[in-house]
Amino acid sequence: MDYSTLSTEALQTSLAAAKKRHAALVKEKLDLDLSRGKPCPEQLDLSMPLLNICNSTFKSPKGTDYRNYGFLDGVPELREVLAEILSVDPANVLVGGSNSLNLMYDVLSRAYCFGVCGATPWCKLPVVKFICPVPGYDRHFTLLETFGIQMISVPLGEDGPDMDLVEELVANDQNIKGMFCVPRFSNPTGIVYSDATVDRLMNMRTAATDFRIFWDNAYFAHDLYPDAPQLKNVFCDGNPNLDRFYMFVSTSKITFASGGISALVCSDKNFASMHKYLTAQTINYDKINQYAHAQFLQSKENLQQHMAKHAAILRPKFEVIIAALRQAFDGCKEVRWTEPKGGYFITITTMPRVAHRVIELCKKAGLKLTEAGCAHPLHMDDLDSTIRVAPSYANIDDLDLCASVLVASLEYATLEELCKK
Amino acid sequence: MDYSTLSTEALQTSLAAAKKRHAALVKEKLDLDLSRGKPCPEQLDLSMPLLNICNSTFKSPKGTDYRNYGFLDGVPELREVLAEILSVDPANVLVGGSNSLNLMYDVLSRAYCFGVCGATPWCKLPVVKFICPVPGYDRHFTLLETFGIQMISVPLGEDGPDMDLVEELVANDQNIKGMFCVPRFSNPTGIVYSDATVDRLMNMRTAATDFRIFWDNAYFAHDLYPDAPQLKNVFCDGNPNLDRFYMFVSTSKITFASGGISALVCSDKNFASMHKYLTAQTINYDKINQYAHAQFLQSKENLQQHMAKHAAILRPKFEVIIAALRQAFDGCKEVRWTEPKGGYFITITTMPRVAHRVIELCKKAGLKLTEAGCAHPLHMDDLDSTIRVAPSYANIDDLDLCASVLVASLEYATLEELCKK
Repeated sequence: MDYSTLSTEALQTSLAAAKKRHAALVKEKLDLDLSRGKPCPEQLDLSMPLLNICNSTFKSPKGTDYRNYGFLDGVPELREVLAEILSVDPANVLVGGSNSLNLMYDVLSRAYCFGVCGATPWCKLPVVKFICPVPGYDRHFTLLETFGIQMISVPLGEDGPDMDLVEELVANDQNIKGMFCVPRFSNPTGIVYSDATVDRLMNMRTAATDFRIFWDNAYFAHDLYPDAPQLKNVFCDGNPNLDRFYMFVSTSKITFASGGISALVCSDKNFASMHKYLTAQTINYDKINQYAHAQFLQSKENLQQHMAKHAAILRPKFEVIIAALRQAFDGCKEVRWTEPKGGYFITITTMPRVAHRVIELCKKAGLKLTEAGCAHPLHMDDLDSTIRVAPSYANIDDLDLCASVLVASLEYATLEELCKK
Repeated sequence: MDYSTLSTEALQTSLAAAKKRHAALVKEKLDLDLSRGKPCPEQLDLSMPLLNICNSTFKSPKGTDYRNYGFLDGVPELREVLAEILSVDPANVLVGGSNSLNLMYDVLSRAYCFGVCGATPWCKLPVVKFICPVPGYDRHFTLLETFGIQMISVPLGEDGPDMDLVEELVANDQNIKGMFCVPRFSNPTGIVYSDATVDRLMNMRTAATDFRIFWDNAYFAHDLYPDAPQLKNVFCDGNPNLDRFYMFVSTSKITFASGGISALVCSDKNFASMHKYLTAQTINYDKINQYAHAQFLQSKENLQQHMAKHAAILRPKFEVIIAALRQAFDGCKEVRWTEPKGGYFITITTMPRVAHRVIELCKKAGLKLTEAGCAHPLHMDDLDSTIRVAPSYANIDDLDLCASVLVASLEYATLEELCKK
């Protein structure tokens, strides 16, 4: 469909037809949900053997009883498995509790209360700012908002954030203390930061000496296709600013959304600085679960086999949505979308002033989408053009219906907007 | 032994004999440890059925899949079991991660960053002070030290802290923002706060409107004897200051030290205020483990039966130490000790300037005790007279030896001090 070729009358006829299709769907009283990146039950079933731990000994090779206190940094076996998977040193891996958001909150909270590696605590500064690639992940923005940190939006393109803008901002404003990134299969566009982008993030000059990048590698192993692009490892010899990166991962979408494990990877200096406060904060994270995860994950190779099973469940769901979008809007300038090679989200970009209306129309027809503005700081999508679609949780049999509602609502809202002109 | 009846020569003879007994023990090259309140392997074995969850459905009665995201406040079934056990409303129970220290850190950190229920954040105040009953728990003091909070020591007696002093302090100093208490089987003396003490804590007037008591009810179910004293419930109708209390519990010494669950109980107002920040901090704590705990703990009655098994393991260990102390120092003013009805610790009070020497002498003879000063803020035991003894972890067969080293070192150091006079 190429709306630009249509006359005013043709647009109005098309709008009437779209309204009719939408009204027919409303009548079906559907109850569908593409709002959150939740794994579906079949995915969760893949990890049930993880719970088969009742006959384990919970002993380390040296005989230490993991059921007891200790090992603040995590069970050594799991630190080693994660280090192999992530190509880092086990000594730089902290295994945390069941979600990485809490680790991010803790790192931010420590910077706020105590300062980064001896610098002034952020709570003592009049202004603290962060760079936020947009569209981005709503929970990152909520974290920053909670700590009263100002958010500077930077557009996220196909290769990552607009690096010319990022470099200029961080070089000239010492109040800019950090940046949140989802560098692989970005939430919500699904793009992967290019090597050139990663190089520039590693090498750029920052006015603030305590500038830190929250490298939320949430989808590090969440490939949907074998040819999915890889992400350059920031913990490599060529990085002159190793202290700049805190990398976060979790198994929430590998094992259990409610009971996985999370990990933080950072440089020796950051690790030592964190450790002092961590000793006050906790005794150890859940080592029973860590031990079970070490047994279950085993190795990088084993993880890849496991993730291929996830992909086999998820890929068809993405493909149903994308096929429907292609069929309805191929070549159309007013409705564009991403076709990610991994992760949990598709982003649809509408004409300005249309996204909230699409979400509203979907809701009327029984399809829940993430609320409008969710991918923008303070929920302010000034263009009102971003829609996040999360196909994972819905039943595969419902996906065609989801796609129909989505397409009908996109057509309706887009034509409505075009007819206003 | 009554040292006061001995002549100078008799003291010196006794010291020589004590040195000899100590030297004989040093020769045995022992490797004993009474330093930390860790459960022993037999105690941990009691909870292995908790891990027998591989065939569970992880479904709520309404069909919600607990393996997925959600239920920030905890699995409803576990909130209900804990509420029954603690005689509180399930709506006031937050189930957290694997240790309550982290919940305390979080509450303190939120007060520091964001303020208590709308009051000025503590990080914006020039001075914040807390009252610390002494002797107390080292990790509480470390928490306060980490946040730069000044600690005011108040003596802990047999019925709780010196309430005349507490009341006077909190009524007249608005910089005093809180107090840490271990109200039942206090760490390290094992005393239980009397009803009168609890009443005064509930009713006292505080200059600070954002004054909060961290009620660390770590040993709420950890009775060693059936006649152990009960603790008055602060979440009762008669408490005019329900908002004053944050109560913390955990199953670290009920199920697994490394993988239990923790809980925070607080008033509706505190709960609502906390919730706003908790939503930013995390998605959910480990619900797989929470579900398993709900199945395992079942009810108050079942918990009591389970804790009776713990007591059967622990009680003989306490009794070996106490019997040895009675035999050696009955009626002696220079060495006194507590005989707790529950919890994990015995406190020995020596003459001034002697405690560190006892700990040093024990170490020489292969018995590790908690470091001197541990029960005091900033590790400053000005009198140098408090020794914490934790009998739980050592093997029962080693307890006699532990007691011998302890007694010999106490005799040696006490006589040495008496001979100086």
